[in-house]
Amino acid sequence: MPERTSPKQLAKKDRDRLDALYEQLKKTTHRTIGYPCNQAWDYSELFRFLEFSINNVGDPFEGSNYRMNTHEFECEVLNKFAEYTKADPDDFWGYVTTGGTEGNMYGLYLARELYPQGVVYFSEDTHYSVTKILRLQHTRNIMLKSQDNGEMDYDDLRESIRFNRDSPPIIFANIGTTMKGAVDNIDKIREIMDEFVIREYYIHCDAALSGMILPFLNNPPPWTFADGADSIAISGHKMIGGPLPCGLALARKKYVDRVSRSVEYVGVLDTTITGSRSAFTPLMLWYALRTIGDEGLEKNARHSLALARYAVEQFQKRGVPAWRNVNSVTVVFPHPAKSVMEKWVVAPNRGIGHLIALPHMTEELIDSFIDDYCLARTEEPPEDRKMPSSKDPRRGETSNAGLI
Amino acid sequence: MPERTSPKQLAKKDRDRLDALYEQLKKTTHRTIGYPCNQAWDYSELFRFLEFSINNVGDPFEGSNYRMNTHEFECEVLNKFAEYTKADPDDFWGYVTTGGTEGNMYGLYLARELYPQGVVYFSEDTHYSVTKILRLQHTRNIMLKSQDNGEMDYDDLRESIRFNRDSPPIIFANIGTTMKGAVDNIDKIREIMDEFVIREYYIHCDAALSGMILPFLNNPPPWTFADGADSIAISGHKMIGGPLPCGLALARKKYVDRVSRSVEYVGVLDTTITGSRSAFTPLMLWYALRTIGDEGLEKNARHSLALARYAVEQFQKRGVPAWRNVNSVTVVFPHPAKSVMEKWVVAPNRGIGHLIALPHMTEELIDSFIDDYCLARTEEPPEDRKMPSSKDPRRGETSNAGLI
Repeated sequence: MPERTSPKQLAKKDRDRLDALYEQLKKTTHRTIGYPCNQAWDYSELFRFLEFSINNVGDPFEGSNYRMNTHEFECEVLNKFAEYTKADPDDFWGYVTTGGTEGNMYGLYLARELYPQGVVYFSEDTHYSVTKILRLQHTRNIMLKSQDNGEMDYDDLRESIRFNRDSPPIIFANIGTTMKGAVDNIDKIREIMDEFVIREYYIHCDAALSGMILPFLNNPPPWTFADGADSIAISGHKMIGGPLPCGLALARKKYVDRVSRSVEYVGVLDTTITGSRSAFTPLMLWYALRTIGDEGLEKNARHSLALARYAVEQFQKRGVPAWRNVNSVTVVFPHPAKSVMEKWVVAPNRGIGHLIALPHMTEELIDSFIDDYCLARTEEPPEDRKMPSSKDPRRGETSNAGLI
Repeated sequence: MPERTSPKQLAKKDRDRLDALYEQLKKTTHRTIGYPCNQAWDYSELFRFLEFSINNVGDPFEGSNYRMNTHEFECEVLNKFAEYTKADPDDFWGYVTTGGTEGNMYGLYLARELYPQGVVYFSEDTHYSVTKILRLQHTRNIMLKSQDNGEMDYDDLRESIRFNRDSPPIIFANIGTTMKGAVDNIDKIREIMDEFVIREYYIHCDAALSGMILPFLNNPPPWTFADGADSIAISGHKMIGGPLPCGLALARKKYVDRVSRSVEYVGVLDTTITGSRSAFTPLMLWYALRTIGDEGLEKNARHSLALARYAVEQFQKRGVPAWRNVNSVTVVFPHPAKSVMEKWVVAPNRGIGHLIALPHMTEELIDSFIDDYCLARTEEPPEDRKMPSSKDPRRGETSNAGLI
């Protein structure tokens, strides 16, 4: 019998490359301020589980023949998220996804299975991955205009619905847009449905980042199942944070069951999109929820919002027209100069840049970024610094009434 | 400013639960013989990279504004896989996926974008996730009969094509079916296309497990880009093995570019399906390829095939009609009794069970399983032990001509 091979040691040059990667990541991590990735976490206690070929294949609530799983922990995470999203415990289903895209894909898939003739409405400020999903899934869709603050233009929604009353509307609502942190108002959306006496419609909420901020505020905007959402996607690697992208797909169970029944006859046995799924990321989320706790999550949300408010104040003191949406940790400012882009990891788009205030950040970090930003602004030729206009009264540094 | 919270320690009862999970996984891992997960690996040297919010968002070859990535290592992995799959270096593209499902989804998406009126053909032995993908993507499809050994029934393919000559065929070829390890013959498939003078067709190969076995055999069946594949999916957590599901989506670059151009105008900027992607799994695959090396991978393939041959011999010596396909590490036997199913982690389906011989396994482990299997067979009432008939000459323990 041929012997099996055991993994050998890395060659020195390869180990050196890993060391260089490690150092580079260590250096870059503190300058990553433009992406919604909290860095205040430590999962080293869980590394031992990476000794096993673990896999959460299939539906977390149904169990699996593959016993090397963490389904039990995943279900606890899901039940906790059912609380955060005000789901009816008897009408709730979900699973831990590979990230925001899969959560949105799941919601849009469920919607299209329920309403095969449905039309998806989403604003131009929606993340580009949604267009990709809709193309992949072959679903009819209409992109709507946005207001200046990044929120959906409800007049455009109304006019678009008016001409498509024969097709059930599937609303893709941003609960915090990627660039400006704007929240689409579900109440207003539902009012428009009422206006046209539309009974068959579906609302999916993309709460990638804000889904772990809004549950801890006193007067959050409407975004939960109790407010009328039919499915919700939340990212795990954003506000909670972690080394592996992950997220949650959450939906009303009665819809999931209806779709399951209708696809069973064609042999679709699995209710999740990816099938083979990480057993480590559910454990990671479980660990985060257990160690941080609701009180800690609330503190993190308060800290981040206070820091965002501080950033806007400091920018404005130095004459930079920075602003943010209510309840948002995303601070928008004119496109930074080139040297700033080289030193800091930001994500500019269409004339603006943003920083995202998160639990691991401090006032000192914000100060340091604003110093560099302002210095480069006076010393370097202006880049594209066109700011969005300020027609909308909700734009700008407003009171932070939602958080007490 | 509200203080931020630091993760606290786990409560004792929670730590106890993790300890219990660890012990249970440790106990179960050695009895997991029915799933294609190699367990001979050790990635502990990479755990330090899990200190960072790393993310390989987007196209590995295009770079990213998010500098906390391992794209460079990912590209090296992809280039190595280009060799294994005999891709033209100038006509090759790919990325590290979240697992086999995403790789197949990518191939089928690419095919449908190239041939929007195309019809997907796949055998009844195809993994159930493919039906799910086709439903998600709204692609026309026809399920074909299989031969007894699990291979596609080419007569059925021929008849189905005959009645659909106006629609470009998209062939989903199994390079190793899930249950029986059968390989669909691309040469025969292409002959059928020639028969009907079909010029526009697409072949996707699902080489989940065998994609890391066949490159190391002397006379593998046709399955590579050189043999006519247009896209290939291979799993990372199977033959290579690892704690996190992952895989590779590989495709002809000219198709990827053609589809990219046509979707750019609708704002699809990202060529991958998931968008935010793990930066750890590409590093894991890189580490495996570097430490094992081509020689080691070949040894692993030989060891696994020899072990599969040994298992069939031992089963047959004890009167059990076990068999396997040529070049396959999957050993098929009648459905095991209940006690065997409780002790060992196997994956029975429609009257049969299988074990999958892998690098971490030994003859002793196989003996121990066969002992339990035979004992239960004599002591317990028969379960559903219907075996597939043996019409096909390729079924059964055949010579292992592909491997010297």
